[in-house]
Amino acid sequence: MTIIDNLSRRGIDASLGTRSLTAITPLDERVSVWQDLTGHRIGVHLLDLARDFDKLCAVLDEIRPDAIVHFGEQRSAPYSMMSAAARCYTVTNNISATHNVLAAMVHLGLDAHLVHLGSIGVYGYSSAGMQLPEGYVRATLHDGLGHDADREILYPGRPDSVYHMSKAQDQLLFAFYAQQESIRITDLHQGIVWGTQTPDTALDPRLVNRFDYDTIYGTVVNRFLVQASVGHPLTVYGTGEQTRAYIHLCDTVRCIETAIQTPPPRGARVRIINQIAETKSVADLAGQVAGLTGGRVVFLDNPRKEPVRNEFEVDHSTLGRLGVETATFDTKLAGEYELIQACDKDRLITCHLSPERSSTERSVVA
Amino acid sequence: MTIIDNLSRRGIDASLGTRSLTAITPLDERVSVWQDLTGHRIGVHLLDLARDFDKLCAVLDEIRPDAIVHFGEQRSAPYSMMSAAARCYTVTNNISATHNVLAAMVHLGLDAHLVHLGSIGVYGYSSAGMQLPEGYVRATLHDGLGHDADREILYPGRPDSVYHMSKAQDQLLFAFYAQQESIRITDLHQGIVWGTQTPDTALDPRLVNRFDYDTIYGTVVNRFLVQASVGHPLTVYGTGEQTRAYIHLCDTVRCIETAIQTPPPRGARVRIINQIAETKSVADLAGQVAGLTGGRVVFLDNPRKEPVRNEFEVDHSTLGRLGVETATFDTKLAGEYELIQACDKDRLITCHLSPERSSTERSVVA
Repeated sequence: MTIIDNLSRRGIDASLGTRSLTAITPLDERVSVWQDLTGHRIGVHLLDLARDFDKLCAVLDEIRPDAIVHFGEQRSAPYSMMSAAARCYTVTNNISATHNVLAAMVHLGLDAHLVHLGSIGVYGYSSAGMQLPEGYVRATLHDGLGHDADREILYPGRPDSVYHMSKAQDQLLFAFYAQQESIRITDLHQGIVWGTQTPDTALDPRLVNRFDYDTIYGTVVNRFLVQASVGHPLTVYGTGEQTRAYIHLCDTVRCIETAIQTPPPRGARVRIINQIAETKSVADLAGQVAGLTGGRVVFLDNPRKEPVRNEFEVDHSTLGRLGVETATFDTKLAGEYELIQACDKDRLITCHLSPERSSTERSVVA
Repeated sequence: MTIIDNLSRRGIDASLGTRSLTAITPLDERVSVWQDLTGHRIGVHLLDLARDFDKLCAVLDEIRPDAIVHFGEQRSAPYSMMSAAARCYTVTNNISATHNVLAAMVHLGLDAHLVHLGSIGVYGYSSAGMQLPEGYVRATLHDGLGHDADREILYPGRPDSVYHMSKAQDQLLFAFYAQQESIRITDLHQGIVWGTQTPDTALDPRLVNRFDYDTIYGTVVNRFLVQASVGHPLTVYGTGEQTRAYIHLCDTVRCIETAIQTPPPRGARVRIINQIAETKSVADLAGQVAGLTGGRVVFLDNPRKEPVRNEFEVDHSTLGRLGVETATFDTKLAGEYELIQACDKDRLITCHLSPERSSTERSVVA
């Protein structure tokens, strides 16, 4: 196994003045610890996917991998909207990175299976009266002249952030390269990942994963857990009627593993899998965390442009068919909270516990 | 009026070892001649849209334009597929350029009307039993659980080149920024442009437009005309049953002018107009040029990945409603041929008259 990375996320930490609640060791150390524990050596190449096309080709040509797992993209929706520079970086970086991988595969005649971490947000956060499909939807197109055409099309999503839009653009790249160059591709449209440890990372404290809780990279589950662990109110944007999709980190990793083991045939269309375990409104999630921890919930003015509430019915039956059973908040949230309680709170930067913009507290519930 | 350019097309000429049949004067000279003739001064800023975001913002903030016409993209489908470097350049350049313009408008709070030159190729070259719409199509989506949703969606195209795919990605950028930031946008999905002069450029020989006839940037009309003018056979790829859409340069310019004069309201969805005058198969076009010029037509093995033949019915009724009457081959082809005949043939690079790959001549017709 080989890692290609430019360590950009660590650089963004520095620029945002934040850091993971868990202490992340340098990549070299992580790889070295892993080798000591397991005997498996992981190669590391530091290069920028979006800029170093020739170096990327050289590495891929040396390795000739059977599978490539691509998550070399800027991955925060709030970050992608925080400044002009962040918008431009997100689009240029994400599209160039994805396209460089595809172009390198064509250039090298590399018959690898590309597994991409997409986002459930490519659909837009509204199912509007129907169940959102896994990528493709049957559609009847009407030309207004009496001719109808039945097609299976990529679901016409309405992404609500620059980040999610870049994932929708990725979909066009994948569709093109699957069709024109017979590249084998699986696109995993992932929900909000929560959880910090997998069985592998739990082997040694130096292997622990990131835990972000700030308003830019910290997702809502992490924020609630860390807020509860230090007696800070759980901060809900708006009414909390925004419904989102979630999956535990352990299940994400198993999805990727399963995807690698079941490549689509060469010449097939892109395989799209919705990598989620459950959907839940933010207010319900806050209520569940409050019930577990004794925390209290506050509702703040929503600094984001998003609908007050949304339906969000999503087909995610493929994972079950592939034999991946997923955990839920009911089964794993308590264990995750214990883990966060055990974290070294000296690392906590308390100003990141509250929304970055001054908000009016509107109401407080138990 | 102000031009922002990085002169990339002139650079590509050098790298391909080709040049326009018409002698193009340097940009400064063109602008200077125009000022001498008309008294109108055109500003020029040499910068790279895709890379120089800060400079772009400075220029736009100084001018605060009412309208921006954006065609700062790599514009050849064959070029976009000729090498790994050309693929990557086309995607990174086109997407970053378009997104930088949009992000600059948001950053500066610039309420300008953005008029973009898209391509009819975003739909893919197949209408498959229905008339292709102007951007949007009514669709009934079926979720397989008995729930149908009626939507008006962007036509789910199937672009057949990296270049056309980049234009489809542009569409996602435009839809997002129209929806989230209320940017007023018109996207002109243009057919193959033919013709060399407009009334303005005909005022002085130093204002003449490019005329490309090579296999990479030269479009099929130009190639047939210049082949005929020097007694070279008209080279048709495959059976010539590929149907494409065309528009004369003069009409393209009037479309852009008309689009600028009729901006969509702020908050509206992107206005999409199919900027074409007629469709025709390549063989029929070759026949028409042969009939006009006395040339002969040869059919060569097709070096491109494209269907042997295609239906291509395209709605282009908006232009008529906007009062733009378009010329056709029947009315303007003879005049264009006279113009090419009068060109200085010492500038012709004859090796560019034939396909770049060795092809087998299969048959010859009168």
